[in-house]
Amino acid sequence: MKLAVTVKMKYEIISSSSVILSILPFKSDTQKVWDEAFEAVPGVTMQEVPAAAGEKRMKIIEVPDAGSVTFAFSAKVENQIQTIPSHQLVDVAIPLMPASVIRYLHPSRYCQSDRLYKFAHHKFGNIHHAFDKVIAVRDWIHENVEYRGGYSTSHTSAFDTITEQVGVCRDFAHLGVALCRALTIPARYFTGYAYQLQPSDFHACFEAYLGGHWVLFDSTKMVPLNGMAKIATGADATETAFASTFGNLHFQNHEVSVELLDPDFEPVDSFSTTQGYSFS
Amino acid sequence: MKLAVTVKMKYEIISSSSVILSILPFKSDTQKVWDEAFEAVPGVTMQEVPAAAGEKRMKIIEVPDAGSVTFAFSAKVENQIQTIPSHQLVDVAIPLMPASVIRYLHPSRYCQSDRLYKFAHHKFGNIHHAFDKVIAVRDWIHENVEYRGGYSTSHTSAFDTITEQVGVCRDFAHLGVALCRALTIPARYFTGYAYQLQPSDFHACFEAYLGGHWVLFDSTKMVPLNGMAKIATGADATETAFASTFGNLHFQNHEVSVELLDPDFEPVDSFSTTQGYSFS
Amino acid sequence: MKLAVTVKMKYEIISSSSVILSILPFKSDTQKVWDEAFEAVPGVTMQEVPAAAGEKRMKIIEVPDAGSVTFAFSAKVENQIQTIPSHQLVDVAIPLMPASVIRYLHPSRYCQSDRLYKFAHHKFGNIHHAFDKVIAVRDWIHENVEYRGGYSTSHTSAFDTITEQVGVCRDFAHLGVALCRALTIPARYFTGYAYQLQPSDFHACFEAYLGGHWVLFDSTKMVPLNGMAKIATGADATETAFASTFGNLHFQNHEVSVELLDPDFEPVDSFSTTQGYSFS
Amino acid sequence: MKLAVTVKMKYEIISSSSVILSILPFKSDTQKVWDEAFEAVPGVTMQEVPAAAGEKRMKIIEVPDAGSVTFAFSAKVENQIQTIPSHQLVDVAIPLMPASVIRYLHPSRYCQSDRLYKFAHHKFGNIHHAFDKVIAVRDWIHENVEYRGGYSTSHTSAFDTITEQVGVCRDFAHLGVALCRALTIPARYFTGYAYQLQPSDFHACFEAYLGGHWVLFDSTKMVPLNGMAKIATGADATETAFASTFGNLHFQNHEVSVELLDPDFEPVDSFSTTQGYSFS
Repeated sequence: MKLAVTVKMKYEIISSSSVILSILPFKSDTQKVWDEAFEAVPGVTMQEVPAAAGEKRMKIIEVPDAGSVTFAFSAKVENQIQTIPSHQLVDVAIPLMPASVIRYLHPSRYCQSDRLYKFAHHKFGNIHHAFDKVIAVRDWIHENVEYRGGYSTSHTSAFDTITEQVGVCRDFAHLGVALCRALTIPARYFTGYAYQLQPSDFHACFEAYLGGHWVLFDSTKMVPLNGMAKIATGADATETAFASTFGNLHFQNHEVSVELLDPDFEPVDSFSTTQGYSFS
Repeated sequence: MKLAVTVKMKYEIISSSSVILSILPFKSDTQKVWDEAFEAVPGVTMQEVPAAAGEKRMKIIEVPDAGSVTFAFSAKVENQIQTIPSHQLVDVAIPLMPASVIRYLHPSRYCQSDRLYKFAHHKFGNIHHAFDKVIAVRDWIHENVEYRGGYSTSHTSAFDTITEQVGVCRDFAHLGVALCRALTIPARYFTGYAYQLQPSDFHACFEAYLGGHWVLFDSTKMVPLNGMAKIATGADATETAFASTFGNLHFQNHEVSVELLDPDFEPVDSFSTTQGYSFS
Repeated sequence: MKLAVTVKMKYEIISSSSVILSILPFKSDTQKVWDEAFEAVPGVTMQEVPAAAGEKRMKIIEVPDAGSVTFAFSAKVENQIQTIPSHQLVDVAIPLMPASVIRYLHPSRYCQSDRLYKFAHHKFGNIHHAFDKVIAVRDWIHENVEYRGGYSTSHTSAFDTITEQVGVCRDFAHLGVALCRALTIPARYFTGYAYQLQPSDFHACFEAYLGGHWVLFDSTKMVPLNGMAKIATGADATETAFASTFGNLHFQNHEVSVELLDPDFEPVDSFSTTQGYSFS
Repeated sequence: MKLAVTVKMKYEIISSSSVILSILPFKSDTQKVWDEAFEAVPGVTMQEVPAAAGEKRMKIIEVPDAGSVTFAFSAKVENQIQTIPSHQLVDVAIPLMPASVIRYLHPSRYCQSDRLYKFAHHKFGNIHHAFDKVIAVRDWIHENVEYRGGYSTSHTSAFDTITEQVGVCRDFAHLGVALCRALTIPARYFTGYAYQLQPSDFHACFEAYLGGHWVLFDSTKMVPLNGMAKIATGADATETAFASTFGNLHFQNHEVSVELLDPDFEPVDSFSTTQGYSFS
């Protein structure tokens, strides 16, 4: 599927500062990125570095002394989602997991799986097949958590959302990650561009490691799973933050647009119970 | 400096489970490890893997169906601490940091530097030299936080300790890490074996990235900085946990012993204000 | 039912301090207390005051300058539990509640009912009769929360227990209170002496306001409801703390014993689904 | 001083609900209230009740089945602030405190004084005179906490604000209360109408019990202390909430206006270090 994405971000700069952006689409064997353009007004110095943990590209930017700065980014992306029948999406024993997967078994700041152990086992412990466990998690979140903006904050974690049951895509994703890990299923946070997201913005969902694949799940049911372009995966929103700022500056606003370049796009069933989808 | 270390850990196993241990001394150019022996009674299957993020070695162990299991580990370690004069321990601009360092600028579960920003700037913001900032952090923790066992739990974070001001080495280290990051100084959690620690146990302290070096600090002032052997470094205790368990088993107890093999050992001044020490 | 109760509490005093104890059985029309004896070694000055909110008696004690102090309290108590058929235990409209009841609709420190609203409504919202709602709350806690000492601390609240699902009588009671309030049923925390509690200690459970009665519930199912003597009721453990200390002193230990003076005692069914019990 | 106050509050009603308002000026020997008018459009049934704990008047309102409802309240208030020289504002020993004062020594939901004990003693413990302690608390908050809207939420407590150091009048007041209680000085939360508050809204500050008086402090320094009319005092914002709602309805907006009726009004020095002011 082919997408054209554009982002504008505006900051007010009080004094010389640094910004690390993770908004560039991830490049991999299964996702091509081209026609990338990144512009800052006024001019800034910048460099691109890969992540040390998780998967992302970072843009490190030094912004000038004062005034406001605007970043404008655009790119085209093409990727191919892989469809995997549910019977292949089995539990993987810990000794068979790569080290890069094992780290996603551990609790993290916003996904405190160690505190959700009993809840997860009471609710999902009697389901045998690993894929069925994760779709039960996905569906429980969808049925119980209300999608509503303006309630959760940057402090809100899965431990809050499991009881307060209101939030946005970030909160839905954190809860999915945390519940999977509590069931000893590696899970990671996924950020991306999403076609048809209303209102248009960055999106977040989660991946679970099943049968050797990172399988994508979205409890918000807001977008087709194959209508996304991956930006980053990591332990949670801390590791995949769209922007981290250091110094004295204030975020003003941002705009995201996602356009389909594929006339024949056919959305998959994002709530399938018989097959999983994977970008990795 | 040369140490001989031994550990015994005992678990009660309810049903077939997995344990990931991070208690093996880290191997590097500056730390040699030999005569390693790892024994489990009854026998288990195990394998060793390196970390995917942070620096550690992991032992992945599958434990049998029931009863109790005892792990016994011993090794000899030799390392050399590097002494660096304070004038070299300067701030490093973010664009000059390797990606493996940048990740230690971000908040983490137990080190919520984003919530400590104003506290850190009110208290330490007017100090100019980066090394002086970190020793001010180290000293403030030492003077204000009471070392007392049995108060903090696995939930306790730097955000708790900064106000409650009581805890153990883990809490002292988390607070040091969090305050450094709040000052835009990369910092990581360090676990190790420590000579002369009373009572004998694993130890934790913190490293700050200054002048291109990972410099070691210990706000507890309990052990000589050059009397330690590194086990792991990572974002915080989540990433460097001595043991992570999956399944149905209960931790019973552990014993740690550290013996000096170096007759001429001379402890450095762990609270020096003129030089830093680094194992990396 | 008649009980003889005794308590011993020991403190180490660092410097002149004050202690407020709420361990005296509550005196009311339905509970008689006699043969009370309160002794402190060494001697202290003390006075007794009633509560300003909630229902309790407080002993205010000024302890001498140093050393250790031991309090010994004993009393005999007789009360009569009232049995009320479930059909009378209906919802009371807010305008018909006395002000002393309305305050138990509000969230409190350990019973954050405002954060449990959606959870409570998803789980119990479709039950119509008020008494049936509360017994569903009581039973859900009993079935899902594991009774285990040494896990929860003085920081643990209903918001923690609803997910972590492990704790002691205090945690069971806080969760019962919080869930009732989230369903707009006034609820309060009840502390008392309990016959047959193993190991012997103070006990806590909760009361819900139904049909104009404060009806007692105990999700731990550990003791017969009619085998208790009320000490205090209040918003939560903050308002009914057995001991509050001001100054420099350390709690050492306490012992509680409860003896039945009633040869013909017949325990009621603490998990009845057809009738409620009330001490008030 | 004489004020005319008006309030408008608007709710969207989804289904029949109850609202408890605590916006009526408190009536006491030292505060007269007259020309009160309370109107609801459309008509509702309502009643007024006094508080069971703390000091406030409550309006209990049953709102009709659907649509929107608007409350309009107006009143005139006259009170007289008492000026007390600092040397009279001394510590009161716990046994000499009335029970209605003792309850304000205890921690509460938003004022967790038990967790602030060491912070308070490190910062303010060496100040001897009780009034001087409280003005040091008042001034520390003013100097360190930034007044900024949109950051804190209904979850924010003194334990958050002491480190995050940003908030609104509610957060300033909670922190003042919590620090006083940590120093064994009874303290309570005060809500009121305030002349010259920009933008116009309800206001919150705190009272400390000194020399037998409830002395008013306002760390925001935004209004003259004698330009206020008391609405309520209580343990914290939980006990003095302007509006508590039960049922299915949404708060839309509110407006507050405060007009001075006193041509000769002379503001007192709200940050006096030589005298205290009391409304009680």
